[in-house]
Amino acid sequence: MRILILGGGGFLGRRLAKELIQNGGLVHGELVSLTMVDIAFEDRLRDSRLEYVQADFSDEVTITNILQQQPDVIFHLAAIVSGEAEKNLELGMKINFHASLQILELCRKHAIHPRIVFASSCAVFGCDVSRVITDETAPKPRSSYGTQKAMVELLINDYSRRGFVDGRSIRLPTIAIRPGKPNAATSSFVSSIIREPLQGKKASYPVPPETPCWILSPKHVIKNFIHAANIDEKLLGDDRVINLPGLTVSVVEMINSLEQITGTEVTKLISHEPDAFLQSIVLTWPPYFETLRAKKLGFVSDSSVEEIIRSYIAEEGIVIKT
Amino acid sequence: MRILILGGGGFLGRRLAKELIQNGGLVHGELVSLTMVDIAFEDRLRDSRLEYVQADFSDEVTITNILQQQPDVIFHLAAIVSGEAEKNLELGMKINFHASLQILELCRKHAIHPRIVFASSCAVFGCDVSRVITDETAPKPRSSYGTQKAMVELLINDYSRRGFVDGRSIRLPTIAIRPGKPNAATSSFVSSIIREPLQGKKASYPVPPETPCWILSPKHVIKNFIHAANIDEKLLGDDRVINLPGLTVSVVEMINSLEQITGTEVTKLISHEPDAFLQSIVLTWPPYFETLRAKKLGFVSDSSVEEIIRSYIAEEGIVIKT
Repeated sequence: MRILILGGGGFLGRRLAKELIQNGGLVHGELVSLTMVDIAFEDRLRDSRLEYVQADFSDEVTITNILQQQPDVIFHLAAIVSGEAEKNLELGMKINFHASLQILELCRKHAIHPRIVFASSCAVFGCDVSRVITDETAPKPRSSYGTQKAMVELLINDYSRRGFVDGRSIRLPTIAIRPGKPNAATSSFVSSIIREPLQGKKASYPVPPETPCWILSPKHVIKNFIHAANIDEKLLGDDRVINLPGLTVSVVEMINSLEQITGTEVTKLISHEPDAFLQSIVLTWPPYFETLRAKKLGFVSDSSVEEIIRSYIAEEGIVIKT
Repeated sequence: MRILILGGGGFLGRRLAKELIQNGGLVHGELVSLTMVDIAFEDRLRDSRLEYVQADFSDEVTITNILQQQPDVIFHLAAIVSGEAEKNLELGMKINFHASLQILELCRKHAIHPRIVFASSCAVFGCDVSRVITDETAPKPRSSYGTQKAMVELLINDYSRRGFVDGRSIRLPTIAIRPGKPNAATSSFVSSIIREPLQGKKASYPVPPETPCWILSPKHVIKNFIHAANIDEKLLGDDRVINLPGLTVSVVEMINSLEQITGTEVTKLISHEPDAFLQSIVLTWPPYFETLRAKKLGFVSDSSVEEIIRSYIAEEGIVIKT
């Protein structure tokens, strides 16, 4: 089985690759080659089956060459994050929308028919945040990022229905806790308020402390990516979009949970710094979901925010002084 | 006020133009010019304010020139119909999606900021047909036509939210009764079974007779187009998509209603000819809607199928022999 990860240089792509190598592939095939595509790679894993392609996947010649390897499975994680896509509409449309359409079109024209797992986002929703989102709720994005993701979901459904690809769009909750540094995602603070204080650094949140967030840990995101690639096409039917399960936790609950683990020495580094731009997007994301379909299909989530924080501390090898 | 009708050569475009000329414009402005764009015009209305542009609106140079007139209002009715878009994906994507995106992009780049009324369709839905569609139901199209319309709706919402245009996407029910000839719309039979027998011609329907359809007469479609252009932007907020009201009527109810008006001499011309391709699309269109938002905003529909048939007979000047 030939697997391709677009956006392989990001932390999710790297972690997914590690897991695929460890597992030796997916349930329906043994890993023969794993091609990682991104504009940059911070570090590279070592495995004879791995190939790194440092290139822009939105470039037609580049992606045409890559697809000539006839991948069996494509994990499409490449994206311009929410904050950047809001500030730069052209770039967001180019990478988040047109480059995705180009992949689907090339698959159609060259009869490649890969299984595609597309990293969509709960940012496709942007309605009354008190409502519970179900599997039947209309996406009404209040960001260009969410708009672009929702459009690609529609395309993947149509190209799957027509038999050109076998797509699955999974709508990711806000990922917490992302390792590394703060980024241009408008949800970046959700990770920062835990990650930075654990490194003795200051962090702030731009929304009111009682703001509920819909979150999922990297560990479970990776499990869900792999599960999405493993599911039998027949179980999905024509609707290839899945709201992933997650956890609804307020900012203050996250901070309190951190404080219970680390004491106030760490949490005193966290402050509230309201930001109108970030609020204008984050506060339109609904935090309450009923993910019946995902659960029935076997997708998973975390049991508590404490579990998320403890997992992060263990994964990063952080030593807590108490 | 400068008004532009894209797809002005179709029967709806022609009727809309007639109404706009008669009304002398819209509530917020007097008609100064009305530009009709289409690849062909069967006949042309006469009015000093009218201009006919026989051209392909998907051509970049053509549409750039047309938009240089700085229209205040654009009625975007141009489309590849459902059956054709299903058979020719490339053509459907080009006209129904890319050409619409091109208009939005030109409006953004040239800071034109028109009010845009986009003819979307209830074909964006394609789920369990027994469910009642509400204003919050997710579009899950089961046709490329519906997919393309749903994508443009998302774009219009985003470009409106960002202030580049002032858009309104109205989801049209199946229009009954269309004058003229049968076309490549998969719903064409809904009009044919009334129109053709009234001309002494045979007609058939491809779905089971008890199949319920969600319909709206041309008269009320035109009223709703004009109403959509008249509504204050503030009443719409960020959600520019409206499920128009309509009427749920089964095929056999339409035929019975015709028979009550004309007797069996006319309805005996109608036969049932199952067609797998047409069924594969039409039977995914939900016929039950709860259109609370549209009604609150003042959109209108027909009171009965009998009213629709009698209106059609009167408008077309058909004489019924009884």
